[in-house]
Amino acid sequence: MNAEIIAVGSELLTPYRLDTNSLFLTDQLNRLGIRVIHKAVVGDGPEEMRSSFQHALARADIVVACGGLGPTDDDRTRQTVAELLGRRLLENVDVLRKLQERFRRFGRAMPEINARQALVIEGAEVLPNPRGTAPGQWVEARGHILVLLPGVPQEMRALMETEVAPRLAKLGSRTRLYTRDLRIVGLFESEVEQRVSPLYAQYADTETTILATANGIQLHPRIWSDDSAYAESRLGELVGQMALVLGKNLISTCGETIEEVVARILTESRATIAIAESCTGGLLAERLTCLSGSSAYFLGGVVCYSNQLKTQLVGVPEELIEAKGAVSSEVALALADGIRRQTGATIGVGITGIAGPTGGTPEKPVGLVHIGIANQHGPRERAFRFPGDRERIRFFATQNALDGVRRLCLFPPVPTET
Amino acid sequence: MNAEIIAVGSELLTPYRLDTNSLFLTDQLNRLGIRVIHKAVVGDGPEEMRSSFQHALARADIVVACGGLGPTDDDRTRQTVAELLGRRLLENVDVLRKLQERFRRFGRAMPEINARQALVIEGAEVLPNPRGTAPGQWVEARGHILVLLPGVPQEMRALMETEVAPRLAKLGSRTRLYTRDLRIVGLFESEVEQRVSPLYAQYADTETTILATANGIQLHPRIWSDDSAYAESRLGELVGQMALVLGKNLISTCGETIEEVVARILTESRATIAIAESCTGGLLAERLTCLSGSSAYFLGGVVCYSNQLKTQLVGVPEELIEAKGAVSSEVALALADGIRRQTGATIGVGITGIAGPTGGTPEKPVGLVHIGIANQHGPRERAFRFPGDRERIRFFATQNALDGVRRLCLFPPVPTET
Repeated sequence: MNAEIIAVGSELLTPYRLDTNSLFLTDQLNRLGIRVIHKAVVGDGPEEMRSSFQHALARADIVVACGGLGPTDDDRTRQTVAELLGRRLLENVDVLRKLQERFRRFGRAMPEINARQALVIEGAEVLPNPRGTAPGQWVEARGHILVLLPGVPQEMRALMETEVAPRLAKLGSRTRLYTRDLRIVGLFESEVEQRVSPLYAQYADTETTILATANGIQLHPRIWSDDSAYAESRLGELVGQMALVLGKNLISTCGETIEEVVARILTESRATIAIAESCTGGLLAERLTCLSGSSAYFLGGVVCYSNQLKTQLVGVPEELIEAKGAVSSEVALALADGIRRQTGATIGVGITGIAGPTGGTPEKPVGLVHIGIANQHGPRERAFRFPGDRERIRFFATQNALDGVRRLCLFPPVPTET
Repeated sequence: MNAEIIAVGSELLTPYRLDTNSLFLTDQLNRLGIRVIHKAVVGDGPEEMRSSFQHALARADIVVACGGLGPTDDDRTRQTVAELLGRRLLENVDVLRKLQERFRRFGRAMPEINARQALVIEGAEVLPNPRGTAPGQWVEARGHILVLLPGVPQEMRALMETEVAPRLAKLGSRTRLYTRDLRIVGLFESEVEQRVSPLYAQYADTETTILATANGIQLHPRIWSDDSAYAESRLGELVGQMALVLGKNLISTCGETIEEVVARILTESRATIAIAESCTGGLLAERLTCLSGSSAYFLGGVVCYSNQLKTQLVGVPEELIEAKGAVSSEVALALADGIRRQTGATIGVGITGIAGPTGGTPEKPVGLVHIGIANQHGPRERAFRFPGDRERIRFFATQNALDGVRRLCLFPPVPTET
């Protein structure tokens, strides 16, 4: 079985707004073994809307439409679909009563225009919407299924999960989509691609999407199958092969972000962390505190943009900054060690670098970042040269700092005898 | 004239990836007076692709397609469109030579499969692509214009700007889209809507999109017109009316973000700033340093998550925290004043609050945030109660802190005689 998704709304045809509902709908449909073959965005013009629905019905088994179920003149999905199918729109007394009750509950009388939301396409099943005024509709026609959902994301999601998915599951396709969600840190998209793509031929019955997101590289291997044991073992094998070629750069096979991985490791090991960051300007602190419960491990940080604060708040010797420069291995080490001592944290992190676009020199170019990480055995440092603009450089720097903390905890350096 | 945009690519039909090229293309088309009436996403299956192009050609004057111009078997846009139009695909010797040169420049021989990228639809104009291997194609057929562009965003953008837009401009539509970009801080979307929507009837020839983004509320009023003087004066008037009802909450009428506004004001007034933030965990520092040149005004900050650091690094008296609690007006004032004194900054900002989801009490619920701002006249404080989850609360807190700094600089409190 296959499906087409139609997003209805003129604002989705401006340069400002994207249809994002379709990602959730695609995920839900895929889990039920239904492929999405086409997505459309259409405004509220009746003719264009009619032609989109007609086109969708001509080739997809299931058409899921979002939006255009509101109470105003611009909300024409109900009427357009009814006309297209040659069916009447009937006022549903149950829906009308619920609408009126809903308004009463909020102490208001129902505006007359809302009565339009009680119009149901002849022969359609009403899908009750507890979170909003517009109910969904399930219509079977000409051997196809047409589902009308509201465009408000929370309402759409709730209706899809509670009303639509169970009905689609009953249609009895045994084919399902099985997936994994691998997260990679410290490699570029092309490097990941280069390492894993030789596996594709060997696992030709799987498909893998590689994704460079704001939060790192993701790999989504997936397989369509009506045999869950086969699918799971096949995916398990493929993920195992991917883990071999990705090595320590693979941080999760179940969609855990680097923030979540670091939070989990620090919590499990009862370690605390404090940071002193310069060029990343607070972004590392922000990423270490974005999860609830971070106060259990995050003691605090200093955003020491000026050299004065590096000395005053973190105890980096003035002479060191003068001798080596603020952007140097030595200062990164001193920041990591200094903030650890100041706060008594288990782990201290220091970052200093040049995020650009100005401030670079031939010796210390834009993108140069020193990251120091200190524990009870002292500080260690690594220098990076990141590509891209200011935003990317700051992101890569924090990504590698988080990964440095992960590696220090998971793969502690073997002490060498001296 | 109107247009339809088709994004080609199977990865765009997964739950992981959205077509974002269409936003840029819509903006470019709108500026040329061309409305986008439909957007489609289609995979690389030949039949589905053909039906999408056929449908688009049946109703749009201009069809702009992105993607499917690569060298592999999955890249079928050229062939599908040629078949649909009943035209041949011809190897273009110029394009082939350029392709071979491009590979030579990088010291490699051209793989044979890339020769496919030199296939041009009979009668099409080649749009040279200096940034990549796939040239664009401009085809006029059956009274329509069909533009094929590569899917890689940088290549698509460059080709659209340098090759496609000038050709479309010559088609001679005098109608253009005129727009403004208003930014609002400190009001919710519904409050903005309530204030500006009474103006819509009075300016019925304009349309306004309201947008709640990660960076605040935006209003995009726009008007289609073939008379630029009329359009500009009409928009100017409408924006003036909007400014009246939005008051100090309107921070920009030309798309400046709150970060940019604050950076500009601090730079112009040669002021410096330092911050001490708790529940926002570094986000305020991050937003104050995301722009290049921020070292001119941003001295640094302390992310004082633990009470110990509030005392140790910012000088908040331990007894004050004990007596009033870490989340209190008094501590926010002490943080703002303390960090200002520690660093010698013109302005000090202190934030303390409960970002949740845990840690709330009946007296101090999740979402309660105290923001202190200090200058030479001492610190002032305001308490907020923000709705939403942890991420939203942290965002709102930093948004209002930035806005507090803006207001302090632009509308300094009138000193009262004592």
